[in-house]
Amino acid sequence: MIQKLTSEARAAELGQLDGWQVAEGRDAIARSLQFADFNEAFGFMTRVAIKAQEMDHHPEWFNVYNKVDITLSTHEASGVTGRDIALARFIDDVAKSVLRP
Amino acid sequence: MIQKLTSEARAAELGQLDGWQVAEGRDAIARSLQFADFNEAFGFMTRVAIKAQEMDHHPEWFNVYNKVDITLSTHEASGVTGRDIALARFIDDVAKSVLRP
Repeated sequence: MIQKLTSEARAAELGQLDGWQVAEGRDAIARSLQFADFNEAFGFMTRVAIKAQEMDHHPEWFNVYNKVDITLSTHEASGVTGRDIALARFIDDVAKSVLRP
Repeated sequence: MIQKLTSEARAAELGQLDGWQVAEGRDAIARSLQFADFNEAFGFMTRVAIKAQEMDHHPEWFNVYNKVDITLSTHEASGVTGRDIALARFIDDVAKSVLRP
């Protein structure tokens, strides 16, 4: 069974990610993203969805038009695990390739 | 400019839809759907996304694994319009074709 990260380990991993925070009132991590439009936002979601299915580890997410709010946690560990960090890293890579500074 | 439906017209339209309700505390309509798994849920979302883009009318939605919560309203009319009803009808048709009783 997968173990959740200690808060120290979670903080260290968060420091390596782009714009992720501890989700308010939950043992979960969250990031909000804003794209150019719906096409770009849903295209991003589709890439993440395919990866999530491959990992058998799925996000909670909310979308309206060009905005996507994502929350990651591992149900069976009741907290944040290495799986969430791996998916967050993938999300960061896709976001970086789409969102130009 | 598109006008929002009166509450009478909105109620009449809701009566023709499947499982839609007035969203709590908002002039919007909402439906929650549960699919077999993430593949089915995201496949459904993808069909709705393509339609939404074609209509230039986009949902607010939340997904976690096999669940999708959708809220529809028309920003520029500050309420529910015929566009929301049209998109809701499309969503019902797709849902019906996926969700077997």
